[in-house]
Formats: sequence, structure tokens, C-alpha cells
Amino acid sequence: MSQTTTPTSAMSDTDLAELGQQLRVDSVRAAAAAGSGHPTSSMSAADLMAVLLARHLHYDFDRPDNPANDHLILSKGHASPLLYSAYKAVGAITDDELLTFRKLGSRMEGHPTPRLPWVDVATGSLGQGLPIGVGVALSGSRLDKLPYRTWVLCGDSEMAEGSVWEAFEHAGVEGLDNLTAIIDVNRLGQRGPTRHGWDLDAYARRIRAFGWHTVEIDGHDIAAIDEAMTSAARTRGAPTAIIARTRKGRGASEVEDKEGKHGKPLTDPDAAIGELGGRRDLRIEVRRPDEAEPAPRGGGDPHTSLPRYATGGSVATRTAFGETLAALGSLHDDIVVLDGEVGDSTKAQLFAADHGERYFECYIAEQQMIAAAVGMGVRGWTAFACTFAAFLTRAHDFLRMAAISRSSINVVGTHAGVAIGEDGPSQMALEDLAMMRAIHGTTVLYPCDPNQTVQLVTAMTGRPGISYLRATRGEGPVIYGPGDAFPVGGSKVLRSHPDDQVTLIGAGVTVHQALAAADQLVADGTRARVIDLYSVKPVDTQTLRTAAEDTGRFVIVEDHHPEGGLADAVMESFGNGHPAPRHTRLAVHTMPGSATPAQQLDAAGISAPAIAAAARKLAAS
Amino acid sequence: MSQTTTPTSAMSDTDLAELGQQLRVDSVRAAAAAGSGHPTSSMSAADLMAVLLARHLHYDFDRPDNPANDHLILSKGHASPLLYSAYKAVGAITDDELLTFRKLGSRMEGHPTPRLPWVDVATGSLGQGLPIGVGVALSGSRLDKLPYRTWVLCGDSEMAEGSVWEAFEHAGVEGLDNLTAIIDVNRLGQRGPTRHGWDLDAYARRIRAFGWHTVEIDGHDIAAIDEAMTSAARTRGAPTAIIARTRKGRGASEVEDKEGKHGKPLTDPDAAIGELGGRRDLRIEVRRPDEAEPAPRGGGDPHTSLPRYATGGSVATRTAFGETLAALGSLHDDIVVLDGEVGDSTKAQLFAADHGERYFECYIAEQQMIAAAVGMGVRGWTAFACTFAAFLTRAHDFLRMAAISRSSINVVGTHAGVAIGEDGPSQMALEDLAMMRAIHGTTVLYPCDPNQTVQLVTAMTGRPGISYLRATRGEGPVIYGPGDAFPVGGSKVLRSHPDDQVTLIGAGVTVHQALAAADQLVADGTRARVIDLYSVKPVDTQTLRTAAEDTGRFVIVEDHHPEGGLADAVMESFGNGHPAPRHTRLAVHTMPGSATPAQQLDAAGISAPAIAAAARKLAAS
Repeated sequence: MSQTTTPTSAMSDTDLAELGQQLRVDSVRAAAAAGSGHPTSSMSAADLMAVLLARHLHYDFDRPDNPANDHLILSKGHASPLLYSAYKAVGAITDDELLTFRKLGSRMEGHPTPRLPWVDVATGSLGQGLPIGVGVALSGSRLDKLPYRTWVLCGDSEMAEGSVWEAFEHAGVEGLDNLTAIIDVNRLGQRGPTRHGWDLDAYARRIRAFGWHTVEIDGHDIAAIDEAMTSAARTRGAPTAIIARTRKGRGASEVEDKEGKHGKPLTDPDAAIGELGGRRDLRIEVRRPDEAEPAPRGGGDPHTSLPRYATGGSVATRTAFGETLAALGSLHDDIVVLDGEVGDSTKAQLFAADHGERYFECYIAEQQMIAAAVGMGVRGWTAFACTFAAFLTRAHDFLRMAAISRSSINVVGTHAGVAIGEDGPSQMALEDLAMMRAIHGTTVLYPCDPNQTVQLVTAMTGRPGISYLRATRGEGPVIYGPGDAFPVGGSKVLRSHPDDQVTLIGAGVTVHQALAAADQLVADGTRARVIDLYSVKPVDTQTLRTAAEDTGRFVIVEDHHPEGGLADAVMESFGNGHPAPRHTRLAVHTMPGSATPAQQLDAAGISAPAIAAAARKLAAS
Repeated sequence: MSQTTTPTSAMSDTDLAELGQQLRVDSVRAAAAAGSGHPTSSMSAADLMAVLLARHLHYDFDRPDNPANDHLILSKGHASPLLYSAYKAVGAITDDELLTFRKLGSRMEGHPTPRLPWVDVATGSLGQGLPIGVGVALSGSRLDKLPYRTWVLCGDSEMAEGSVWEAFEHAGVEGLDNLTAIIDVNRLGQRGPTRHGWDLDAYARRIRAFGWHTVEIDGHDIAAIDEAMTSAARTRGAPTAIIARTRKGRGASEVEDKEGKHGKPLTDPDAAIGELGGRRDLRIEVRRPDEAEPAPRGGGDPHTSLPRYATGGSVATRTAFGETLAALGSLHDDIVVLDGEVGDSTKAQLFAADHGERYFECYIAEQQMIAAAVGMGVRGWTAFACTFAAFLTRAHDFLRMAAISRSSINVVGTHAGVAIGEDGPSQMALEDLAMMRAIHGTTVLYPCDPNQTVQLVTAMTGRPGISYLRATRGEGPVIYGPGDAFPVGGSKVLRSHPDDQVTLIGAGVTVHQALAAADQLVADGTRARVIDLYSVKPVDTQTLRTAAEDTGRFVIVEDHHPEGGLADAVMESFGNGHPAPRHTRLAVHTMPGSATPAQQLDAAGISAPAIAAAARKLAAS
């Protein structure tokens, strides 16, 4: 087969129809080689992809980090064969690599991930591409101030996800005319017809109501697609949704518009390839963007001081977080902050006073908040997304996918645990440590003191992966000095003596309870070591093992449900055959109601008297 | 103060305005007594509540379990003072109890929970009341076939949550004319103005686009409220949203329509009470519903057989789940099934063939799926909500709140772990055990065999709290007989000998790997006990402790991230000072790509050879 690179400017509509057929053929071939995959979902969108590549995308495939590049997000990530076929058509990958689809070690994964340099974010959990695209587009208009466009290819099934409507709302209100959603309405979901079938207007009505410009087209009409994309690029003040009627499996009679054909290779790929006009090897040159550089970053005022708190005072870690964030915002001009409409409570709002242009109000839409942070991370911004820790559970799937995206974002959850007091269980994060620890590659930090908070928040800014800070609502004593160091992966031994009989381990509010318990224990002759395990992940294995050797007994106390939190983190250090200490776990086993913070700690059995009692019992055993 | 009970039929609009003022006064008093709470958010909606109580709600406060009762869900749960003040006005609670608001032991919690018999579900995490209300309304129209209405009082801030739009979509398409959303547009969120302020039409346009009937009113105009509610009750074929312009803190100049007054008691409650016309003690009689009984339930065909699988065959646990569910549907006519548009994959669809009227397609909207299950649970239906385990993370906050609601629902997640193979990490649940274990009061089950699956799914149906079943995509060997028993909280010792040197512990796919490893170990003279820990929560502490005493060494292997899963569950049995065995944990530490299931298990180091190697190393130590 001969290969010629056609300048895209010279490609006729007929050429583009040919390109669409090639993308279909290659999608069929990739799935056939893999023995699995989603060719039919690729075939419906092939013409949309062809026109986008050849006429509208501005992208430098040799330089995926070119800041002027457009962004293409395949929200319907299962249509990965289409994306990879497109990469082949533009010369980014070979046909041989395309045919490694879904094989061990291949970059051509079942759903796209940023192992491929042209993929911004992992997709495959539906309803995430558009929310993240909003974050990228916001970066373009409000941070980078560059004219790149963000194109998001969506499926119709994923329109049922509420996260998509958070994104429509966010983009609509922000008037992001640099964002285009292309919705491939092939009317068939995984298990049968979608809710709205080919009722394009059902989608258009809804999306328009959210302030978008909409265009309804036949998604196999090259000229109509071209016109719609042109209209999207020309529209000012509103994002555009191109709502395209398509046929799933288009062009292959075995599968076209048939139920039961989702997520399977074709039974007879050769016949389908024949129907599609056979193999082609069109090679197209995607238009490169005009050279453009964003305003230089990484400056900031190096003379800004971080907050310092005098020992003996009383300060909430959330307050220290907010004040540190504000200072870091002056030190580093690449920090951006996203709020879930609780910035007055999380204290993230303190950042807004001096850095309002880098502060993003996401309202009560935690999925969109995390997605926007991921999108800004795509463009190199260091994002802090902040809300009550309890409400981060709303964004669990986005956090999970952010890890697969190799995204480095910072997440801050305040108002953790029963220590919030009267508001009751709906506002209490008692599962957040379990959630954040179990996500791949995370860092989980939980300070008990404002000076410690300063250090930990600062450490988060340069750290790869998802970093999570758990902060407390109420004030607590300042026990550390401003000069103390708190490395990630470390811990602080607050009481230690060669004759220690037991080790008390806490983090956050329970550190103060453990210290009080140690004082009570000394009074009746029991020496207790106290460890502040502020780095919950990674955990300070060496210090824990030494304490186990020295004292043989641990009381681990946490303001969290018993599962997945501090105690589990501690016990991780005693895998690999390392002898584990005898230990007692104190955690929140009951369903709290309303009460004062002190009453809550008592009721849950995680206050000083309960710790002291557990330690006495354990030491006597 | 004298108290008279006024028949609601005799109450004039002026009387209702008085009732509204009383609800405001009592909200101010409750928050003042507590020293915290949300009086201003209560005051904006007081007139809406007054008219609803007196003229439109049909509810038997003496018999909250009356199946004919309407349902009132306070989606803006922070306005709890308003709800409790309403309960006082209808005579359900005393003024003394009202003033225990937010105190230790009081039922008057900061946010409502079903500790109060008139509260269907806990609220306080915004954007959940309407989705759950859709589930209640669906029960009314499609299951109970009773004319009760569901009224959901929403805040304007929570309209930013995508879950609300999943609910608008679900209810709109289902044409739930027995559902009314009342949106209290007081224009002020927690930290300042909402996105749309008093632009009622911004809400109405969006909601209408989703197929609802909308009415825009002045939320302090008694006659207008009454007319809107009448219109809601009369509208056929569509749910109604009443979009009410209100003023936060209405009636008290200290706070009315002012920023910075969210979630705080008034500084001068006496002055505000004076402005509001002083204390009143109106006592109203809510109209009781007409007697009505739903069709009798709990019947079903007792002769239906549960599936039985012949040992030696090969069956996926997801298939056994689907087949069991279908049989249980015949045995028990109170079982309902909800699908997240993957019923062909989870096999939940097998239920639909014979029980289509109890099968609910929720499309790809996991939050709405769980919410609808909770709503059906309110009406006593035994719900199974099913999707890929990975996508249950989408509904984490709904599951967390379902626990606070004391809801008994069953959740099934299939396609767990790297064992799914080629689809890659976006589809792999590797955090679900951590998530589900950490939720209060859950049961977590993970079968490795189809006969075991039959027993466990059956056990879920009558179990209180949230029960979770983790199921596997691929086929596995049938190792148990149809008569074997698998009690919740138990385990199965598959290999055991007095000379065992090490215990291998797995669940689901890793059981089969552990068995293979044990065979390899025997070949070189190492005896290994094998435990199938199918009940991950509660865990079989006794069997684990015996194994620890007998063998002293554990290898725990799981198809899950290292945090929060099986190993942590095992180690829980060694708290309370009980000596822990030396142990090695094998779990998924890496970020998987695409590969075959067998390659995935190998790459993650959780297949038989890795288990055998770890056991040898541990046994030698």
C-alpha cells in the first residue's frame, strides 16, 4: 500500500469521507487483532474525527507539550480504536503499534491513558471528559490566556451522568467559547437504546438551557460537520455543543445500528473491511498552531513569608491551611485554588483576596471541582481543590481516574471527623482516609498543629500524584515551633523514654488526646511513647518498627471509622513478615448524633480517658 | 401562651402567614438555644412549609408507617430548625424537645436523620433529597400504585450538584406527576451569592428542558404558594418544580438577605423574635391521607428453585449473581432491581425477563441509581443496585448518606480487580473494598464460586444495613457444592493439616490462585492452610485467630489496592491486644495497563507463583 501525506488544506469532502472510512477500517482491524474492544462505538464517530483532524484541530504531534496546541479529549474513552486510528493517520504511531491494541505492555490500552503523550487525561469512566475539558478551557481563557481550543468527543449514553451537567453549567456560565463538545448520538448504549435515542433536540434543549450554543447535524455528512465545527470556532461568549446523529457500527452491515454489538470485535472483520472499501493508508498533516507562549510562570514574590504561629496559642489547622495557601499564592504564581462553595469554612477563600484571578468558585459541584483541577493540571497549573472532607466522597470516581491520568493535584478536606461537633454525621468525614489511601499513588497528610500544617501544605505543592490534606474545624493548641520540620513520610515522636511500656499513636485531633492520655498514664506509673503520625501515606515504617521493638504495644486512635484509616496505615508497616506489636484500635464505631466536639470524642471512645484506659489494659496484658 | 388546634381547612391566608412567622420564631429560638444551626436558611422557606403543612401535605403523624402518607424530604437538610419547628406545629414534638436542638442525645440533630420517625432519609449532604424523592415517587407510581405525593424542599445552592440533574432527568422521563420539588431560591449560599441569584427563570429554563412543569412564584406570597402547590397536584404526566423567590433570614433585619449570616444563630434573637411578632403557639392538624393499602407483598412463588451449579464446571460469579437474583425475584415479590445501563454485563438483566415491572433502568447515573434504591427502601422494597464495582465510587457520598439514613439496600459491583483483563484500569475496581468497608454498618461479601454466590446473594436480601457483593467478570471453577453453607461472618477453610506452616488467605479470584499455590508448596514440602475469606466484613475472627495460632504466618492476597481491602480486614481480627501473626500482603501496587486476565494477575504479583514464593520466604523466616 503506498502512503502519501496529503496537505489537509487540499483535502476535499470526498477525501475526508475516505479518511473516515480508513478510521473505521483501522478500528475494526485493531479490535480484531485484540479480540476485544469497541469498534462499533468508534465507527459512529469516525467522520466527526476525520473532519476535526483535517480541518479544525491545531496540534503539533511532534511537540505535544506545545502550549499553543488545541486539546482533544475522548470522553467516550471506550472508542479508543478510533483515537489510535487517528494517531496512525496523523503519523504519530505506526500501523504495527496500532495492532498491539490491548496487549500486554502496549501503549494502546483498552481505554486511553497519558502513557500516550497526546492523551491529556485517562478516560473510560464516562462523564469525565467534558468536566475536565472545562478545566482545560478555563485555563486557556483565564490563566494561560492563549487561543487554543478544547474539543471533547462525548458519547450519548454519558449524558445521563450528572457530572456532565455540572460541566455544561460551569462552562455555560463562564461563557467558554474556546470549548466544543461533540456528542456522538449513535442511539445505542451498552445494553440497548439510550434514553433519548436519536432525539437530538432532547439533548439540544437541555444543553441550550445551560447557556450553550448548539448545532444539530447528521454526523456522517462531512460538509455539515465542517460547518458545525466552523460555527463552534466562530461563536463568541458561549461554548458550542455539536449534536451529531450517527449510526453505531456505521458502514458494516454485520453491526450497523444493531443492538448487542457493543464492546465486541466484529465476527467477520474482513467482510466489514471489504464493505468499508478496504484498507487505506491515508496520511494527513494536522495543522500546527500558531506559535504562542503563555505568560511566564514560576515567578512569584520570593520575599513572601509563610505564616508562623507562636507555641502556646490555639489555631485551627484549616485556618493555618488557608493562611499558608494565601502565602504560597504569592510565592508561586502557578498555584490555583478551586472552591466547592465553602471557601469561608475551608479558609481557601483567604487565597482569593490577593490572587482572585487564580481562584475558581465551582459552587457545590465537587465532581466538577476535581475535574477542573485535573484540567488545569493538564496545563501545568498547581491546583488545590478544597471542600469539606465528607463531600470529597462525591468526587471519588474523579479522584480514582485522576490517579490513572497521572495527574498531580492537591486536595484539601476540612471538617474531618466527629470533632466537628454539632452538625452531625452528614458533615463528618469518617471515610476519607480510607478513600484517599486506597487511590493509587496518593500522599495523605493529617496535621494536628498550625506550624505543621504550614510545612505540609508547602510540601504538597511540588509533589507528584494526588496529595490530600485532612484538616480540622476546631482550634487546637500550637505544639510545634515554626522551625520544626515535617517531611512527608515522617512522624514526630512527642514523648519517648527508654522504659516506655506502650506507644500511643494519633494524628490530627487525636494527637492532643494521646498527649493528655500519656500525662494521665505517667501519673499512675505507666510510661507511654506518643507518636504524631501526620504522614498517613507514606507512613513512617522505621519509627513505628522501633516503637514496636521498644514498647511491644500500640494504642492507635483515630477520628475515622475503624476501616481503612490510621490503624490500617500503621499495620501496613508490619507486613513482609515483620513481627507486629500487640495493639488496640480506637476509632469511631458508632453512628454519631449532635453533640459538642468534646462530647463527640468521648462518645466515640477516642478521647484521652479512653486512650489511657486502653493503654492500661494493654500494658497489663 | 394558650394553644388551640385550628382545623387546617379553617385557616385563612393570614393564619398561614402567622404560621410561617411561628416557624421562623421557633427556628430562631432553636438555634439560639443550641448556639449554632441554620436559622436564616429556615426562615426563607417558612412560608413554603406553612402552606404545604396546612393545605397540601397528607400525613398521619400518629402513624408514620401509614403507606398512604405523603413523603416530605428536606433536601436542604441544614434547614432542620424549620423542619423541627414544623413538627412542633403539628404536635409531633413538644417545644421542650425542639429546644434540645443539636444537644447530646437529642433527636433534633443538626441535620435530620431517621432517628425521627417522620424523617424518611438523612439529608445534609446537598443534592440528595431530590434523587431519593424520585425513588419514593417511582415506588408510588410503579410499585405501590398508591396516590401518595412526594414533596422535596430543595435549596438553590444544591442545584449545582449534578446529582440533582440526574434526578430531574429520571423523573422527567418517567413523568412522575406525584413528585414536587420546591426550590427555595433565597439567592445566598454559604459563602455568598449563588450562581443564579434570584434569576428564577435560569432554574425554570433548565428544569423545563428536562421535561418538568415549572411554576415561578414569590415564596412569601401565601396565595401564590397555595396556587402553585395546587397546580403541582393537578398536573398530569410531569413532575412539578415550584421555583420560589425568597429572602434568606426573612423577617429579621439583623440577617434578612445579608451575606455572612449562613449557619449561625442570630446575635440578638429576642430582637428578631420581636420583629417577627413574638412567640406564637399555633397548633395545626395536618390532613390525614385517605386510607389506602398497597398490594400485599411478601408472597412470591415458594416453589422456585435457586440455581445449582455442578462442581467441576466453570461459571462467573456475576452470572451466578444474575441467575440467583432472577430466582429470588420469583421467591420474593418485594425485590426490585436497579441497573446503571450495564445490566447485560452485571447480569442483573436476567431479573428483568420475568420481573420487568420491578426492574428499573437508571442509565449511566450511579448516584441516581443508589438514590432511587434508597427511596424504594423507604417504602419497604428490597432493592439491588448493580453496576461495575469501579463505577460505584461515583455514588460514594450517596452510600455514605444511606448508612446515616439507616437504609437497608443491596449493592452489587461486578468486574472487580485487575482480573477483568484488557479493558484496563478505568474499568477495574481496586478501591471498592476500602470504600465499602469504611461505610458504617456495611456487610461486604466477595464470592469465588457460583454456589457460594447463590448463598451470599440470598443472605443479602434480609440483612439490615448496606450489603455489598463484589463479583468477578471471568469464569472460575465451581469448587463448592450447591448444599454448602456460607454464613455471613464466616469463612471456608479449603486446605488444613495439623502441620500447616503458613496460611494463605484469599477471596474471589485469589482463592483459586491460593489453592494453586498450596499445591505448588506441597510439592516442595511446605504445608499451607488455605482460607476463603468470602465475608470481608464482618470477618471470621475466630478462624483467623486459630490459623494464626496454628501456623503463625499469613500470606494475604487480594485483587485490590494494598490499602483498605482484604489484608486490612484480616488484621482487624488482631486488635484488642491479640497477638498478630507474621504476615505478607500481596496486592495490586502498580498501575495496570491492558493485558489478559492471567497476565494481569501475574503482573500484579497476585497469582499462584507469587503467592507460593511469598509463602516460602515467610515460612523460612
